[in-house]
Amino acid sequence: MAPRLAQPVPVGDLARILRVPIEGQADLPIDRLASLESADARSIGFLSSRKHLKAALDSSIGALIVSAELARQLPASCAARLISQDPYADYARLSSWFAKQLRPASTGSGLHAQAVVHEGVILGDAVSIGAATVIEADVRIGRGSRIGSGCALGQGVELGEDCVVHASVVIYPGVRIGDRALIHAGTVIGSDGFGFAPSREGWIKIEQLGSVRIGDDVEIGAGCTIDRGALDDTVIGSGVKIDNQVQIGHNVQIGEHTVIAGCVGIAGSAVIGARCMIGGGVGVAGHLQICDGAIIGGFSLVERSVTEPGFYTGAWPLQGHAEWERTAATLKQLPRMRQRLRALESSSSSNFSESSESSEFSDSSSKDPQA
Amino acid sequence: MAPRLAQPVPVGDLARILRVPIEGQADLPIDRLASLESADARSIGFLSSRKHLKAALDSSIGALIVSAELARQLPASCAARLISQDPYADYARLSSWFAKQLRPASTGSGLHAQAVVHEGVILGDAVSIGAATVIEADVRIGRGSRIGSGCALGQGVELGEDCVVHASVVIYPGVRIGDRALIHAGTVIGSDGFGFAPSREGWIKIEQLGSVRIGDDVEIGAGCTIDRGALDDTVIGSGVKIDNQVQIGHNVQIGEHTVIAGCVGIAGSAVIGARCMIGGGVGVAGHLQICDGAIIGGFSLVERSVTEPGFYTGAWPLQGHAEWERTAATLKQLPRMRQRLRALESSSSSNFSESSESSEFSDSSSKDPQA
Amino acid sequence: MAPRLAQPVPVGDLARILRVPIEGQADLPIDRLASLESADARSIGFLSSRKHLKAALDSSIGALIVSAELARQLPASCAARLISQDPYADYARLSSWFAKQLRPASTGSGLHAQAVVHEGVILGDAVSIGAATVIEADVRIGRGSRIGSGCALGQGVELGEDCVVHASVVIYPGVRIGDRALIHAGTVIGSDGFGFAPSREGWIKIEQLGSVRIGDDVEIGAGCTIDRGALDDTVIGSGVKIDNQVQIGHNVQIGEHTVIAGCVGIAGSAVIGARCMIGGGVGVAGHLQICDGAIIGGFSLVERSVTEPGFYTGAWPLQGHAEWERTAATLKQLPRMRQRLRALESSSSSNFSESSESSEFSDSSSKDPQA
Repeated sequence: MAPRLAQPVPVGDLARILRVPIEGQADLPIDRLASLESADARSIGFLSSRKHLKAALDSSIGALIVSAELARQLPASCAARLISQDPYADYARLSSWFAKQLRPASTGSGLHAQAVVHEGVILGDAVSIGAATVIEADVRIGRGSRIGSGCALGQGVELGEDCVVHASVVIYPGVRIGDRALIHAGTVIGSDGFGFAPSREGWIKIEQLGSVRIGDDVEIGAGCTIDRGALDDTVIGSGVKIDNQVQIGHNVQIGEHTVIAGCVGIAGSAVIGARCMIGGGVGVAGHLQICDGAIIGGFSLVERSVTEPGFYTGAWPLQGHAEWERTAATLKQLPRMRQRLRALESSSSSNFSESSESSEFSDSSSKDPQA
Repeated sequence: MAPRLAQPVPVGDLARILRVPIEGQADLPIDRLASLESADARSIGFLSSRKHLKAALDSSIGALIVSAELARQLPASCAARLISQDPYADYARLSSWFAKQLRPASTGSGLHAQAVVHEGVILGDAVSIGAATVIEADVRIGRGSRIGSGCALGQGVELGEDCVVHASVVIYPGVRIGDRALIHAGTVIGSDGFGFAPSREGWIKIEQLGSVRIGDDVEIGAGCTIDRGALDDTVIGSGVKIDNQVQIGHNVQIGEHTVIAGCVGIAGSAVIGARCMIGGGVGVAGHLQICDGAIIGGFSLVERSVTEPGFYTGAWPLQGHAEWERTAATLKQLPRMRQRLRALESSSSSNFSESSESSEFSDSSSKDPQA
Repeated sequence: MAPRLAQPVPVGDLARILRVPIEGQADLPIDRLASLESADARSIGFLSSRKHLKAALDSSIGALIVSAELARQLPASCAARLISQDPYADYARLSSWFAKQLRPASTGSGLHAQAVVHEGVILGDAVSIGAATVIEADVRIGRGSRIGSGCALGQGVELGEDCVVHASVVIYPGVRIGDRALIHAGTVIGSDGFGFAPSREGWIKIEQLGSVRIGDDVEIGAGCTIDRGALDDTVIGSGVKIDNQVQIGHNVQIGEHTVIAGCVGIAGSAVIGARCMIGGGVGVAGHLQICDGAIIGGFSLVERSVTEPGFYTGAWPLQGHAEWERTAATLKQLPRMRQRLRALESSSSSNFSESSESSEFSDSSSKDPQA
């Protein structure tokens, strides 16, 4: 559960921070940001959808960030309402304020005595580096950036200002990362792309001579791997947000502000546009394009380029296992069933001629990614 | 292959440890727990299913843990039979005894000189902490727990008694873990959940103010990631067993004694019941429920709540690639084919009226998760 | 982008290194290996397929490794052509030469003062070990091997000659790895396999007493996990190449020269042949066999043994989301549709008797993996 502030604040102060009007009791003391379910009278939360109105009415919460419209449906028992044009965004902003109170930035902790910083490293002001972290030669780290313990930054890495790198992150030589990056623990950036040429003696390694370039305001979750390019760089645009355990192959390009949920794998040389949303567990095949603004439903395989913005999905729906066995066995008959259906139709009366299979077949064929 | 004991033990001693009766040569010397395939006359193994009877008959193994029924079918050449009500469970118990002989617990190794332990840390008796591990302020570690090298435990982490944490594990501030946890290398617990609010300037981070609470007797494999909650906590019940490379999103709840195989991804706020079995590579969508006792077949997407215990699956069966291309292309015609089939039926003779599409359609619609 | 050499070399020297004939300007100075897109007059690249001929013609590249046939179609503007029987393999060989110039091996760096090397460790000549790396008792490391920072090698690990182990790699006790291994950051080898026996009190752990054996010339990507065997060993053959975030369960066997792309999960006791190619995101179920030379398309589930070499796939193709919803809902009707089709056929004229469902059904049933 979110911790409480050491000292409560009047809810009116929070309204001022968010620059929103307040209804009700402006001096209500607040010491916690809470969900509707675990809230009490000293908690503030948010209501962004009519779907959760009942939970809000049932809640013991003291204050809510809420639209003017939904505010009218809240009883007087919710002591204070902060009237917001965008309650979810204002909740996000308020979470940032609470985080600052609850976890004061450990500024000034500086270089730990057991950090290993090689020659020629350039550190900005107020950089902190944890114990057992190794910073190789020629690394540059911008002011205010904080590196956790047990990390390794290879030769020539560039990291911008006000970045946070959690423990056990490994950044290979030559990787460049912009300002305000947030990189979670155990992530690896700049490992070799997967490239081998076949030969009679086995696989010949293709050395990965490119690097990785990452823009500003990028968040990368825990346990991710981002490979360096073979010749050109792997490129991740500014504002991209990446969840945990995402794998990004060599020479992938990801456009600005795209979000990628957990467990996604993106194969080499895929080009993903800006402002895309890639659902959890998605696979993206190599050497294809996804246009700006595409949304890919969770657990789908993107096995062809996506050229129009929109919402795309491909995944087998869950079934009872016995039912699945029957369906899976029958699936293999599908092309045959189509032929048989066609045969039945052509032997049937002429009133099916409108929906004749022949024209339809050519349509579908032309759209067929495997064709 | 499992190593041999420095000194063999009479198999009768092993029967006493398991508290099971023995048939045959009780003084047979045993120095290894082995599979049927790699066993010799000094090995003990187990036979839990008639399916492996032939392998047992072909084996050179000296002693077997076996049911009374299967024991009757073993030749005299298997010198000793330990008669068990549950050979697989007794094999598990014996593996624990062998492990204790082969890897004596490194008690008393204590704090390594290169461990970094901050002020205010409370360590129980016989705690050991490896080199290059950093323990931040206010951490509590229960008696007998052993932390490997290169780990990071953030401020205020609580870890129970007799836990084993392998190398390079990162536990973020405030995470609480019960007794007898076994956490494998490279796992990250308490990283930020993936939450952002859209705004005109890009994504606004939602700070993850909740934490992670883990019960007793939990095993977590290598390379897992478990995110902290946004406001409430992510909760993992006692007795849960998690394989490698599992991703657990923020605010997920997992009931007691549920087992989760490798490469599973569980999206935020999913609630999974007790005693479930989740197969490898499964994806669980966010904000849904899986009831107690559900079994999910490997590689399935759980895209709707599961409300009845049972065995569920959803995955495309493997095909020859050319056959798959035809099937995949035809798949997209499936709704159309259904309409065409219906049209054929309605134009056909009246003896199909029993299985008329109309009634069937309403049934299937009501069960349709996407409807 | 691939870095430039400090000093350019005449392209004729590169032809001599590759032992291939050269056409055109042998004294052309080259300082970079480049893609067709980012090349300039001082770059060398390769053209291995007619598909990229236009890109080659549009490129500013100075020199190309190319087949005799394609060389004839290049204009004089490409100043030098290295005529190769296998341009892709020669590109791979040249990448190795460039890598050696650009990243001179840090030989002689030796043991870092903050490395922790226990008693009884046997190190070959010219071994280097990074800071915050812990080498437990009885480890053997062959000559010329280099271990990065923050690693942990457990008791009795054996690592061959000329291996490279990047930062934050954890190798559990008793694991044996051959010569020339390349292991990327964050990978864990030898963690416990996932085995538990059910009992009334919950799950009883099956201690994993086996180990992991890895042959020569194996590359393992970042963030992989390879479990030790329960009784016998997990075995990975020589020449195997494994991409990032691959999970290999206990007692898996992988034949020589097999390649495994990213995000693959292989469940326990699966046996994979030699020279297989496993696409990204594939799941392999436990206790099955894949024969030598099989190719598995990305994102497929191998839920049955594969007994014939060939190319296999199973994955739902991407659809528009609304179209997917209709298809997914209809999918569940598939076995029923088949019955209805059969009923229509049997009520239809006799000219369908050739393709009668009954015979076809028995064929498909016998091939059904679930049957």
